[in-house]
Amino acid sequence: MKGSLQQIADAVGARLIGDGSRQVRSVASIESATADDLVFVAEEKHLQSALQSRAGAVIAGTFAADLQSDRPVLISDFPKLAFARAARLLQSEHARSTGAHHTAVVHASAVLAAGAYVAERATVGAGAVIGENTHIGAGCAIAAGAKIGRDCEIYPNVTIYAATTLGDRVLVHAGAVLGSDGFGYVRDPQTGRYEKFPQVGSLVVEDDVEIGANTTIDRGALDETRIGRGAKLDNLVHIGHNCKIGENVVIAAQTGLSGSIVIENGAVLGGQVGIGEHARIGEGVMIGGQGGVLPNKVLRGKGIAFWGTPAQPLRQYLKQLAHLARLAKKD
Amino acid sequence: MKGSLQQIADAVGARLIGDGSRQVRSVASIESATADDLVFVAEEKHLQSALQSRAGAVIAGTFAADLQSDRPVLISDFPKLAFARAARLLQSEHARSTGAHHTAVVHASAVLAAGAYVAERATVGAGAVIGENTHIGAGCAIAAGAKIGRDCEIYPNVTIYAATTLGDRVLVHAGAVLGSDGFGYVRDPQTGRYEKFPQVGSLVVEDDVEIGANTTIDRGALDETRIGRGAKLDNLVHIGHNCKIGENVVIAAQTGLSGSIVIENGAVLGGQVGIGEHARIGEGVMIGGQGGVLPNKVLRGKGIAFWGTPAQPLRQYLKQLAHLARLAKKD
Amino acid sequence: MKGSLQQIADAVGARLIGDGSRQVRSVASIESATADDLVFVAEEKHLQSALQSRAGAVIAGTFAADLQSDRPVLISDFPKLAFARAARLLQSEHARSTGAHHTAVVHASAVLAAGAYVAERATVGAGAVIGENTHIGAGCAIAAGAKIGRDCEIYPNVTIYAATTLGDRVLVHAGAVLGSDGFGYVRDPQTGRYEKFPQVGSLVVEDDVEIGANTTIDRGALDETRIGRGAKLDNLVHIGHNCKIGENVVIAAQTGLSGSIVIENGAVLGGQVGIGEHARIGEGVMIGGQGGVLPNKVLRGKGIAFWGTPAQPLRQYLKQLAHLARLAKKD
Repeated sequence: MKGSLQQIADAVGARLIGDGSRQVRSVASIESATADDLVFVAEEKHLQSALQSRAGAVIAGTFAADLQSDRPVLISDFPKLAFARAARLLQSEHARSTGAHHTAVVHASAVLAAGAYVAERATVGAGAVIGENTHIGAGCAIAAGAKIGRDCEIYPNVTIYAATTLGDRVLVHAGAVLGSDGFGYVRDPQTGRYEKFPQVGSLVVEDDVEIGANTTIDRGALDETRIGRGAKLDNLVHIGHNCKIGENVVIAAQTGLSGSIVIENGAVLGGQVGIGEHARIGEGVMIGGQGGVLPNKVLRGKGIAFWGTPAQPLRQYLKQLAHLARLAKKD
Repeated sequence: MKGSLQQIADAVGARLIGDGSRQVRSVASIESATADDLVFVAEEKHLQSALQSRAGAVIAGTFAADLQSDRPVLISDFPKLAFARAARLLQSEHARSTGAHHTAVVHASAVLAAGAYVAERATVGAGAVIGENTHIGAGCAIAAGAKIGRDCEIYPNVTIYAATTLGDRVLVHAGAVLGSDGFGYVRDPQTGRYEKFPQVGSLVVEDDVEIGANTTIDRGALDETRIGRGAKLDNLVHIGHNCKIGENVVIAAQTGLSGSIVIENGAVLGGQVGIGEHARIGEGVMIGGQGGVLPNKVLRGKGIAFWGTPAQPLRQYLKQLAHLARLAKKD
Repeated sequence: MKGSLQQIADAVGARLIGDGSRQVRSVASIESATADDLVFVAEEKHLQSALQSRAGAVIAGTFAADLQSDRPVLISDFPKLAFARAARLLQSEHARSTGAHHTAVVHASAVLAAGAYVAERATVGAGAVIGENTHIGAGCAIAAGAKIGRDCEIYPNVTIYAATTLGDRVLVHAGAVLGSDGFGYVRDPQTGRYEKFPQVGSLVVEDDVEIGANTTIDRGALDETRIGRGAKLDNLVHIGHNCKIGENVVIAAQTGLSGSIVIENGAVLGGQVGIGEHARIGEGVMIGGQGGVLPNKVLRGKGIAFWGTPAQPLRQYLKQLAHLARLAKKD
């Protein structure tokens, strides 16, 4: 889509300096921008290079409020956020097919809402529901009974098991697996063999969640696994059965949660973090990359960062690392 | 399937207290149970809530042996194990299609045994064999020459390379990749470039193995990789070329084994464990989450837990952590 | 392919002792070799078992230069490298189909070069280009506009997003995802919700790269992600947006790179390594398994090994571990 700078400024709540009738088509970095592009500057030290770039317009922080420039500038308290919103506005709304590609296999009892599309070779099982304007990518396998909300984008080769429900505006990247069996067994003490514990629960993914490529989320064993509204999961993340992930939780790549864990709203987990079963991560807690949390452990403290295995408050852990380094230097 | 409590008690070796003609249809947690459901209690402290639930019947440990209750109770030495077995009995044996969906691509020289089914858009290559009652999910790619035993369930979008053999009753979750090339190269000292070492061996997965979603298992370089009978692998696990995994080994999510590792029978690896090439993990050894084992290392001791990187006996490692914490507190 | 020993010796630069007209068909380990097979010995101590095996010929180091044996022997300064090259020569060049399987869905505007093949149920989007002799496996989803060079092998169920370019002779194993959206959001300080930062950049994979099963590589946010010539990535690796991976870099399984990281030429990362955003790993640096590198950190030193989290020069880190062990032994 093309948009005038005035339209964009209005939409993202920025104050425009310069010609509001100019149009941009897309967003870019300062290095790669052309006259059709919008760029942003979050720190004053980068302002000059933005103004020297070929960008059609610049979103900048309030540090640029008094700027005299031929280049149109949009002033925002939160320039990066404004840029992200502008990017969404400009995203080309390419006309999309609706219905199902002739190579897709959609069960007669499945429901495709208005504007939904099932791409090449995707399968949609009996009784599944695909919401309005939702797009199911090539090769996806949507099991019988799965429910997917509206305005979702399911990239290719995703597998969604039965007993899975997705809310609206959910993005699922390629190769992700949603609703697979949890990892639960009971050892027979006589034979040493493992009997599979029933994995017959459900998975609920709430609105506005994004799920990375090849991430796996297991359904509950007997009850449900739940991913809260607005949570963002990176690639290759593993979420075990019966976990409850709160709203606006952020989980970076390759982090793994075993079963029955609670992550409260707004927590942030770095990459390759591992959390043991039945642990609870409090609201707004942050865990640094590769941190490990023991089973049943509770971490609390909004905005408090934890690190290490077992995870400790960051300051305390850094002290330990410093001591260790000092000891070894004595040799 | 519906089953009478007497049938279930007989099948799982429990002693029934109460009306054996009552029927249940499925299993549930205490919280979500309805009158059609069977629940279980492994610890006496949860017995009251089970009896106050709406469950049709309760499996409990011997602590409930003298219970007076209107609710039918099944007494077992191992109530969780009995519950898991009851769940398997009750699992609805839905009538399944056999043969191949018309969108599947099955090579003329492939063999589908009686009761086998190849679902939508799956491919089965030349000379591949699919055993009795085995189900190949939508979008799976089964390479030429692969052999799959009977009563296996291969979930959607699994890829099985050639030179892979699966035993009977193997479960493979969505997106798993079996038999891919191992990671082996030879560096040319003159150019610094890597020449691919031949990865032309095989993968054998024995009976009763379960493999998690998006897990990857490489075939042997020149010989074989082998996953022993009854082993259970969680999601996103990586098994390198030439590894030998023993019987009833348990490997939790995101654990990775590089090449030529031996895991002996009954070992248990937590999540995100990493093991270096040519290491050997002895029978019944346990390694805690995120533990790391160096190349060529041998860990021994049935029932002994190891933790940390490099992995040490748990007690010894905890001592070290405690010392470190004490040091840092002196500041 | 069958090859005479003289042909092989010439091709790999080895000196032949014995009958050069003898033929071998394939490579094997010493244990499994038959008379049709070529084996190799890199260390003198294994020479006897090689000579006692059933192998048709042996590639050995210069330690075998004066050997008197009925068995033909190829002497090389780098016997393992010579063996790998011989294996490549012997690889059966099975006649392959060209064009597209009738169940593939290739857009009318896509270009398939001579000798290219699109296998069962794969999709190739509008304007995509598939180079000469490149093979697209069953179930792959190649998005509109993606460009793939010549002599590539894309295994089944791989997803390649738009704005992805692959060079020549690239191998991509099953389930890998190339060019997915990076993990970037801007938090709205008023609501605590995350706005998606635009992920509209590209991914370039240069010649001779190999990418493991279920590995994920994100495209750049605004600019590009790049995987350098000859780099080798194992299974379940994660590469975040805007990373630049140098030439001949080796990255073992389950290692994860967050965004905007530079890995210079010839660096070697062990398994389960984690690297924070904007870090730089210098030319030829090695990082041991499970090592962790903090954001913005720079590690330098050709051939220097680092280990631990935060990663330190190996010797220094081992000293710390030793101190810790000693402390705990005093109890």
